[in-house]
Amino acid sequence: MAVGLSAPAPEQLCPVPGVRLGTARAGIRKADRRDLLVVALDPGSVAAGAFTRNRFCAAPVLVCREHLEATAAIRALVVNTGNANAGTGERGLSDARATCEALAPLLQVQPRQVLPFSTGVIMEPLPVERVVAGLPACVSDLREDNWLAAAEAIMTTDTLPKAASRKVRIGAAEVSVTGIAKGAGMIHPDMATMLGFVSTDAAVSPAALRSILAYATQRSFNAITVDGDTSTNDSFVLAASGKAAMPVIADERSQGYAPLRDAVTDVSVQLAQAIVRDGEGATKFITIRVEGGAREDECRKVAFAIAHSPLVKTAFFASDPNLGRILAAIGYSGIADLDVAGIQLHLDEVRVASNGGRDPSYREEDGQRVMRRSEITVRVVLGRGERSATVWTCDLSHEYVTINAEYRT
Amino acid sequence: MAVGLSAPAPEQLCPVPGVRLGTARAGIRKADRRDLLVVALDPGSVAAGAFTRNRFCAAPVLVCREHLEATAAIRALVVNTGNANAGTGERGLSDARATCEALAPLLQVQPRQVLPFSTGVIMEPLPVERVVAGLPACVSDLREDNWLAAAEAIMTTDTLPKAASRKVRIGAAEVSVTGIAKGAGMIHPDMATMLGFVSTDAAVSPAALRSILAYATQRSFNAITVDGDTSTNDSFVLAASGKAAMPVIADERSQGYAPLRDAVTDVSVQLAQAIVRDGEGATKFITIRVEGGAREDECRKVAFAIAHSPLVKTAFFASDPNLGRILAAIGYSGIADLDVAGIQLHLDEVRVASNGGRDPSYREEDGQRVMRRSEITVRVVLGRGERSATVWTCDLSHEYVTINAEYRT
Repeated sequence: MAVGLSAPAPEQLCPVPGVRLGTARAGIRKADRRDLLVVALDPGSVAAGAFTRNRFCAAPVLVCREHLEATAAIRALVVNTGNANAGTGERGLSDARATCEALAPLLQVQPRQVLPFSTGVIMEPLPVERVVAGLPACVSDLREDNWLAAAEAIMTTDTLPKAASRKVRIGAAEVSVTGIAKGAGMIHPDMATMLGFVSTDAAVSPAALRSILAYATQRSFNAITVDGDTSTNDSFVLAASGKAAMPVIADERSQGYAPLRDAVTDVSVQLAQAIVRDGEGATKFITIRVEGGAREDECRKVAFAIAHSPLVKTAFFASDPNLGRILAAIGYSGIADLDVAGIQLHLDEVRVASNGGRDPSYREEDGQRVMRRSEITVRVVLGRGERSATVWTCDLSHEYVTINAEYRT
Repeated sequence: MAVGLSAPAPEQLCPVPGVRLGTARAGIRKADRRDLLVVALDPGSVAAGAFTRNRFCAAPVLVCREHLEATAAIRALVVNTGNANAGTGERGLSDARATCEALAPLLQVQPRQVLPFSTGVIMEPLPVERVVAGLPACVSDLREDNWLAAAEAIMTTDTLPKAASRKVRIGAAEVSVTGIAKGAGMIHPDMATMLGFVSTDAAVSPAALRSILAYATQRSFNAITVDGDTSTNDSFVLAASGKAAMPVIADERSQGYAPLRDAVTDVSVQLAQAIVRDGEGATKFITIRVEGGAREDECRKVAFAIAHSPLVKTAFFASDPNLGRILAAIGYSGIADLDVAGIQLHLDEVRVASNGGRDPSYREEDGQRVMRRSEITVRVVLGRGERSATVWTCDLSHEYVTINAEYRT
């Protein structure tokens, strides 16, 4: 199932000058499916990355961090599906390095200019020889208009490819921002997507690129949850080829910083929402907006407590306005001095609760009417201040259990 | 479904001198089912309570706290099912107080000597007139050998009544410790059970009783989780009638303190485990033991991260040794300086992982063999110190989704 999600048409995805993509069928786990992607970045490109905070992070994540610390002048990404190369110890690390070393000469770059990514089953050795054997086919397939095939190549339990694209004017130049992502389960903040990659032909300094990455990540991939599990492999990379005819965006005060930041954030939010819309077993897309907090982090706490509650999620699945479950989740979200008497709860246009209990105007049939919708906004007003946060999630269905009980079969 | 759970035989439940129980069919939500319980404590009894830390705690929890602050000389408990009286604001509070005021004259005690409890649907007004109308029937049913009927009267989505009993010798006296509990969903630490009540005829001071309650709670009801939802109504009350012929246990240094504490803990652990065994949709009973931690709380963090992961829980349901999911949960449990290279993971007698990756001796068929069992112990060794913690949980099945999607229908 997938809520309001459709595959993007290839012509909706603007090519990004200086960024070429190539895929192959390497037979990593299953025969005859695209499971290997190479992204080649022209000389002069810079990249920045955000990664999982899971302490058991995968070998490729460790290698990505190492390479990005050494240089922002990244020239290639290589992504395999079918195997996460996580929980694989020393061997996993040398497999991830070997992948970079095999790709580098094919593109005439240094191994440390290659970022490796893996997604799939955890704690099984990476079949590195199949990855390496598939690289030449990827390289000969490299094209600027290959975004949709790239989005397909990184799918695992995803039902549809995820890609988004924007054009944005910066001074006299019109630059492209195009991205792809994958992920449907093991989705939780601190890098919710398994993999996300957004690129632009804008000219940006490494420092400005890192600042834009952090801004966009917090508002997109770190604001979604499917099941509360933080993956070992979550990675989000933003790359800029610098091909557009424009002055370099040096820092946050540069002209062009804000429009580029907003375009990247917009593409990232679309990709992040696509992950939730394609959440394992999802039948509903839920926006949780928490307002009136004293701090943004407490708004996020409340939003994620609601988003993670299996009881709330099954009630959405059943279209059952058992809305006390939302109040219960607000109550245990961890705000020690929360005064429940000041709280309001709205479901779309219906006011459900106020002053710590059911609103006098609330009628069960109103709640029922909203719960039947496939897209619902839960709005909580804490009455403690001016800060807010928004989180997106999906419901918990029979299909989620089926998918995750049978993932490896 | 219920893992290894069977209804206790009435003769296994020792009556506790000075503690009488009576039930009634009050028609609170459904006709013709026991839904109201009164427990009467003889003069001289003392009680202590531990309650949910959910900020949206139910009205009866607020009243219980207030009454226990006023006096330890509690004389009665009154419990209704079918309605939680939570998220009900000011009216909920006055309904809970009205229940105590109605019971008090029937037992010739003060209203503040009555503790009220409610469990069931949240955010609907308590039909207090039906509760009050059912009280005389409860009072005329009061008997010391009525524990099993009491356990049945407090069930909601429970499939079987939960009760446990012990005799313990303290000096020359043999005292009884008997308890009941209910709960199958919305189960999470910080008072995991919806309701637990354990009583003894031992003679104990209020201070010693509170100390025993805290000790037992941490090792029983606060060490279980079904779905990670902390209820609005969780309550655990320990009462001592003082009828046994023995010197009063004044404090932790008194003779008799340790054996009574251990007997109460033992009964509480049995009740807590019965809740997990009867977890909504549970097909497996999972013990998670985390050893080698620097502090007990970090062991608990790791154990609960594993216990709450929907991916781990569905893998148990499927008997699928997709054990990297357990490593992933350890990795995101929140220990910032965790060195994964020092971690070992065992599943019953099988060593699965060591040194941050799959153990060289591990074979998939060994993992598969253990995963097919209905009772499984996950043992994690952190290699950071000498502390440990144990948590009990169950798997996540289709039946969980069905139960919670259809709870109110």
